Amino acid sequence: MIESLTALSEKSGLPPGSLIHIGDVRETVTQMTVIDYCSENIKEHKIQSLDEILKYKDSDTVTWVIIEGLTNVDIVEQIGTMFDIHQLVLEDILNTHQRPKFEEYDDHLFIVLKCLLPENDQFSVTYEQISLLVLKNFVFAFKEKKDELFHPIIQRIRTSSGRLRNLQADYLTYTILDTIVDQNFILIDSLDEAITSLEDILLTSDPVNNTLNTIQKLKREIISIRKHVSPVRELISAMLRSESPLIDEKTHIYLRDVSDHAIRVSESIESYREILTGLLDIYISSISNKMNETMKFLTVFASIFIPLTFLAGIYGMNFEYMPELKWKWAYPALWAVFIILPIILLIYFRRKKWL
Amino acid sequence: MIESLTALSEKSGLPPGSLIHIGDVRETVTQMTVIDYCSENIKEHKIQSLDEILKYKDSDTVTWVIIEGLTNVDIVEQIGTMFDIHQLVLEDILNTHQRPKFEEYDDHLFIVLKCLLPENDQFSVTYEQISLLVLKNFVFAFKEKKDELFHPIIQRIRTSSGRLRNLQADYLTYTILDTIVDQNFILIDSLDEAITSLEDILLTSDPVNNTLNTIQKLKREIISIRKHVSPVRELISAMLRSESPLIDEKTHIYLRDVSDHAIRVSESIESYREILTGLLDIYISSISNKMNETMKFLTVFASIFIPLTFLAGIYGMNFEYMPELKWKWAYPALWAVFIILPIILLIYFRRKKWL
Amino acid sequence: MIESLTALSEKSGLPPGSLIHIGDVRETVTQMTVIDYCSENIKEHKIQSLDEILKYKDSDTVTWVIIEGLTNVDIVEQIGTMFDIHQLVLEDILNTHQRPKFEEYDDHLFIVLKCLLPENDQFSVTYEQISLLVLKNFVFAFKEKKDELFHPIIQRIRTSSGRLRNLQADYLTYTILDTIVDQNFILIDSLDEAITSLEDILLTSDPVNNTLNTIQKLKREIISIRKHVSPVRELISAMLRSESPLIDEKTHIYLRDVSDHAIRVSESIESYREILTGLLDIYISSISNKMNETMKFLTVFASIFIPLTFLAGIYGMNFEYMPELKWKWAYPALWAVFIILPIILLIYFRRKKWL
Amino acid sequence: MIESLTALSEKSGLPPGSLIHIGDVRETVTQMTVIDYCSENIKEHKIQSLDEILKYKDSDTVTWVIIEGLTNVDIVEQIGTMFDIHQLVLEDILNTHQRPKFEEYDDHLFIVLKCLLPENDQFSVTYEQISLLVLKNFVFAFKEKKDELFHPIIQRIRTSSGRLRNLQADYLTYTILDTIVDQNFILIDSLDEAITSLEDILLTSDPVNNTLNTIQKLKREIISIRKHVSPVRELISAMLRSESPLIDEKTHIYLRDVSDHAIRVSESIESYREILTGLLDIYISSISNKMNETMKFLTVFASIFIPLTFLAGIYGMNFEYMPELKWKWAYPALWAVFIILPIILLIYFRRKKWL
Amino acid sequence: MIESLTALSEKSGLPPGSLIHIGDVRETVTQMTVIDYCSENIKEHKIQSLDEILKYKDSDTVTWVIIEGLTNVDIVEQIGTMFDIHQLVLEDILNTHQRPKFEEYDDHLFIVLKCLLPENDQFSVTYEQISLLVLKNFVFAFKEKKDELFHPIIQRIRTSSGRLRNLQADYLTYTILDTIVDQNFILIDSLDEAITSLEDILLTSDPVNNTLNTIQKLKREIISIRKHVSPVRELISAMLRSESPLIDEKTHIYLRDVSDHAIRVSESIESYREILTGLLDIYISSISNKMNETMKFLTVFASIFIPLTFLAGIYGMNFEYMPELKWKWAYPALWAVFIILPIILLIYFRRKKWL
Repeated sequence: MIESLTALSEKSGLPPGSLIHIGDVRETVTQMTVIDYCSENIKEHKIQSLDEILKYKDSDTVTWVIIEGLTNVDIVEQIGTMFDIHQLVLEDILNTHQRPKFEEYDDHLFIVLKCLLPENDQFSVTYEQISLLVLKNFVFAFKEKKDELFHPIIQRIRTSSGRLRNLQADYLTYTILDTIVDQNFILIDSLDEAITSLEDILLTSDPVNNTLNTIQKLKREIISIRKHVSPVRELISAMLRSESPLIDEKTHIYLRDVSDHAIRVSESIESYREILTGLLDIYISSISNKMNETMKFLTVFASIFIPLTFLAGIYGMNFEYMPELKWKWAYPALWAVFIILPIILLIYFRRKKWL
Repeated sequence: MIESLTALSEKSGLPPGSLIHIGDVRETVTQMTVIDYCSENIKEHKIQSLDEILKYKDSDTVTWVIIEGLTNVDIVEQIGTMFDIHQLVLEDILNTHQRPKFEEYDDHLFIVLKCLLPENDQFSVTYEQISLLVLKNFVFAFKEKKDELFHPIIQRIRTSSGRLRNLQADYLTYTILDTIVDQNFILIDSLDEAITSLEDILLTSDPVNNTLNTIQKLKREIISIRKHVSPVRELISAMLRSESPLIDEKTHIYLRDVSDHAIRVSESIESYREILTGLLDIYISSISNKMNETMKFLTVFASIFIPLTFLAGIYGMNFEYMPELKWKWAYPALWAVFIILPIILLIYFRRKKWL
Repeated sequence: MIESLTALSEKSGLPPGSLIHIGDVRETVTQMTVIDYCSENIKEHKIQSLDEILKYKDSDTVTWVIIEGLTNVDIVEQIGTMFDIHQLVLEDILNTHQRPKFEEYDDHLFIVLKCLLPENDQFSVTYEQISLLVLKNFVFAFKEKKDELFHPIIQRIRTSSGRLRNLQADYLTYTILDTIVDQNFILIDSLDEAITSLEDILLTSDPVNNTLNTIQKLKREIISIRKHVSPVRELISAMLRSESPLIDEKTHIYLRDVSDHAIRVSESIESYREILTGLLDIYISSISNKMNETMKFLTVFASIFIPLTFLAGIYGMNFEYMPELKWKWAYPALWAVFIILPIILLIYFRRKKWL
Repeated sequence: MIESLTALSEKSGLPPGSLIHIGDVRETVTQMTVIDYCSENIKEHKIQSLDEILKYKDSDTVTWVIIEGLTNVDIVEQIGTMFDIHQLVLEDILNTHQRPKFEEYDDHLFIVLKCLLPENDQFSVTYEQISLLVLKNFVFAFKEKKDELFHPIIQRIRTSSGRLRNLQADYLTYTILDTIVDQNFILIDSLDEAITSLEDILLTSDPVNNTLNTIQKLKREIISIRKHVSPVRELISAMLRSESPLIDEKTHIYLRDVSDHAIRVSESIESYREILTGLLDIYISSISNKMNETMKFLTVFASIFIPLTFLAGIYGMNFEYMPELKWKWAYPALWAVFIILPIILLIYFRRKKWL
Repeated sequence: MIESLTALSEKSGLPPGSLIHIGDVRETVTQMTVIDYCSENIKEHKIQSLDEILKYKDSDTVTWVIIEGLTNVDIVEQIGTMFDIHQLVLEDILNTHQRPKFEEYDDHLFIVLKCLLPENDQFSVTYEQISLLVLKNFVFAFKEKKDELFHPIIQRIRTSSGRLRNLQADYLTYTILDTIVDQNFILIDSLDEAITSLEDILLTSDPVNNTLNTIQKLKREIISIRKHVSPVRELISAMLRSESPLIDEKTHIYLRDVSDHAIRVSESIESYREILTGLLDIYISSISNKMNETMKFLTVFASIFIPLTFLAGIYGMNFEYMPELKWKWAYPALWAVFIILPIILLIYFRRKKWL
């Protein structure tokens, strides 16, 4: 189903800039993890209060703060105060109905986009909004839920002493974006599977009424995915155009790579949309085809017996003067007609390619 | 129904610049409210004559004049004279068939757009045209009807001593635009509900002829909504491009936020339009499906009884020499055929998946 | 019907710049009216020869020459010579298959567009090509036909001593354009009416074969109208971009107003086109619906009588040993079956929602 | 049929710049005509060898060389050598599967486009590729076939002492382009005729299976025409943007006129494409309509006789105790039923609007 | 089938810049060929180790290294180290799910695109990714498979002492691109053939259920081809815009020629897509048509025998007082009715054009 829009109106009427969490996912506890690293060192620990990150504020190390769960509005407010973040940014972090976008402020960047995760049993997608707040040497990542999305990145920071550890906040930002965009490929794989199996059902076996539901469901999903995925390209273009000192020239080539991936995802989704539209046409065609089959069967069956029944009806009449009734061979002769007539008709129908 | 265009031609033939109220909503009394505020003070009162606002003309406070009801053409004319407004602007205020637009004049800005309100009982939309005339320290808001649209803003001015009270006419303008655009989310919620329930009817229960009407009605509504909503994005872009001293650089970030909302509304409407188009295809498919069901039923039913009736017809014939008629077990044997033949046919139909 | 293109090829093969009247409307007499006005004075009279306008050539008054009927090629040629107009402009004036366009020459402007007039009895449109040749203090308006299109403007010049009388040729040009574009609103009203009544027929009463003709006819009309209306926007944009001294900066705001009207007309037509496309789908659906109804009726009717006829056939057989035939209550019992069986079937069909 | 693309691959694998004639039209003899003219003089003669044009190379007269038939590759190669033409241009002249384009070189211009000619008997189009090579005082026109396309231009050069004779190679180029583009109007006329007659068949008389073929054939033609016509607009835009000294500023106004014609042609084709798409929908609707008619007929016919046959069946039964059989008026009474029942049913069907 | 996207997600989660071969084609052995040439000399040999090309590094000759098979990741890594290639480029070479693109680095250019090869037996396409790495005097061409794609180019280098041998790496690059793009024409030929034969089946002979599969298969192919072909145009535009010293001004004209070919391919594919969409409509129409035929047959057949059977039923009734039964000529008279009634009905049906 398309991400319900019911919550959209929750906030209309409120003053702009009011900090309220808007969204369907409500983690009871907000968990904060801090990863502070430079080329030599790495510190990683869960924190209870934001005061614990104050000490990193003036250090040269890159500090990555992951905030999982958005129900605790105070944390967002506190970050706003500590780092002097614009009120509208804080508001956007808490409202999980954002369109992917990139905003540039004097001393911080704000990126918000959706991470799309396929659910396991049936084809349906979970959307998780990820907001990134990039400052000099600081990256805040706000997530709606506790999940393992960032584990591979953390693992790489831990083990690698490579590029990631040497580079700045912008490279970390790129790594996070790359991870989120690459999630889409998993989604597209499951979409590919769903559509291919649907196509097989339509073209080879017997499409049932249920097929229509699946087509419509997939169509809705694709419309919804496209809405969340296609602005990502634009988001990265905006980052590339940005002249903020927070994005180094060297990171551009990596961002362009993410952009390429985003374009490939968008194009694949567009292709699937076209194929799906074709499937509905094929479904309609196949129903027409089946109706035609049924019709032909009825016509052949009825056409064979209708004249025979008429003949039997004739000799069931009670006229006094019906000479045939007395002929000895009349009855067997009629049986011959009963056998030959259908044969002739069957040959005729075969010629018409109805059989 | 699409907003009737019948009134459009009312004015053709008249000289440009003639002040005539064109529109369907005709409030008998025009009500004027003045809210004059600065960071320390707030004055709010209804006025009878425009002369009462003259005293605010040279003060530094922000003065917001809400004019509800457009039947009194004199008021608009008087404002035109008092503040030296271009004749075409006055004309546009009175003609409620405007496309959303932003116009920049030397010392005033003119914004016109539609506020979309869902009606309660059935799915249908009311359009109210709102015109904003922004001068230095003055905002005129012209509304077609008396309603509670602006109450939350007035309430916030009253209670808050915050940003709204400190800032200038452009921030007030932003607040009004934000309120109007956010109304659309309520509309989209009701649209979502209508389409989802329609989809449920189509896919699960029995679509009736009425469904077609609802689809067409919703389609018309969406076409009409889109016409009024999609130019809002463009309107705000024009405001952002404007170099008028009446729009402060600091307000840009707020306007961009409204623009984001407008884009989200447009994209949602586009999504619903696509889903709706799909629903019509599904409706057509489901009718074909049902026809196929009916056809199969008829075919199965007829195919079973047609040969039996023929058999009964044979032994109803009056030939003298029909040896079977005299056999003792002929009648029960025929009954056996009457029972076995349908069973064979039923098995055949089941194999064909017609049952 | 789409404006016939048959005449398009009339001229191919002729040298470019040959003055020949191409078009379907052939007024026998070409009528010329001169209106010469300044803020104090107005002179208005019909003229027989172009020599009569020579005297206005060097005066400061605005001279408006209306030429109705294009069959007299000499007049156009004479104007070309008198005012040194480019040969291709003269050619375009006489060829009434022009696309709306604006052309800028050193000392004159050329505007050509179509005036769309709905015809009264049925829904169909008449196209009249209007060419405007704007020089300093001179406006030539070429019309295909004698009609009352310009009467309101003339009336306003006569009575008003206002803006129109004080301003230059460019303001007169704007007034003419405004009048022509506003004609479209009348057209759109009649289009609205036609489509709404078509929609009512389709959704409520019984669509007949004729409906299809009407849909196709309206579709053709809309395609044709769009072709003539949508370039008007572009035409006015070109006028606004023009740096010709013949268009004063002050007139821009008026031209932008005409442009707004043209956009509204285009958008309305686009909406109607979408609605019309939907109507064809609804027509197809409603035919399918009706077919389904017919099919259900046949199936119910046949399914009830087919088994009964079979039963009657059984007891019409002539076997010697048919014990039932001798039972006294057999006949009434069978009648009971004849009555109960249909009732059971009817209940079954009602459950299937076929009744 | 779409211009077969089979020949496209003929050349793949060959080195770029190989001069080979690729195309379906193969004139056995290549015919060369030279027309050399200035305002006073005109010389016109067929030549056998290119050496004969050498003498015009340094004269001030305009020399127009028409080469009809492309099988003689040597001629093209020789021109390339004589006038120092780029190898790729020569290749493009010989390959008749070019997209319309304009290319600008230091001292020559290259224009290639298709001339579309309707064939007489049925609706189908012949494409002839025309390449123009424009040098200072020289225009080479390469044609695939010998036909009368350029005769009117030659005639005008001969007789007129007007503009054409006084102006340079660029004006001659314009005249040729104008002639080719105006050919399209003839094509559009025949397209208009074909579609209108198709529409008449569909809406009034009885569409046969053949109609579908015609629709598809026209659709293919329109797709193919559009492919060849729509880039012409772009071609002329490129000419207008060009700063080559070979195109005089004064010729621009003429080229813009050709561009206008090209736009009109493109728009007409687009309109016909839309109408044609509508026709297919109407065809499908009309088939559904007819099926519904057939169905209704069968239903009415069957519904009338099925109950009657059942009644007759009842009194054909052989029960011993059937009191009605002995009643004197039973048989006439039954006849009354046989007459009244159908009348009731017919009234019912008329009410249902099935008759 | 659309190129399976299953492999897309293989890499998500991996750090960016990890060198892993991703793709379906897995040649067991990677084969390297070196062609080193200048205007006088040519050396051509297979190499086992990349060290053998080191000697060409500082020579002025053009060195073309063809690497067939991508399973040996080390080779790519080694090239990266030897020539200082960006890590992301190496990654893109190994990942065969690239979108066609051009990337410009300080001292090398990277081009990746797909070569489309039609398979012989049925209509289906093989995609081979070709990556080109262009350095000063060096061109690396990476191919997924060993095939004969580059043989014609090698042949031309060997034999010709012409342009190719004299010019630099950029001209070689052009030659390779030209060869790859021209492959598409072969593909389009086979597409043309497939669609034309499909069209013939649909319009003339009897479309079977299988036709639907073929349409859907072709549609999928076209969507997939378009995805790989249309970005080529953009790729070459980027090359033309590039200011890299590696692309000489003189090569631009050749690249523009390749661009023209790419546009023609894209336009042809677009045309085929439109035609294919039309074919599905025609398929649906033709099924409806056939259903109508079946329906008419049944109706005619049933309508003729139903009344006759009823008549026979009447005279099979056993009423005592049925005077007709005793009339001598009743039976022959009824036979007359049995013959005349069908004739009347047949005439009626012929008038209705059902026969």
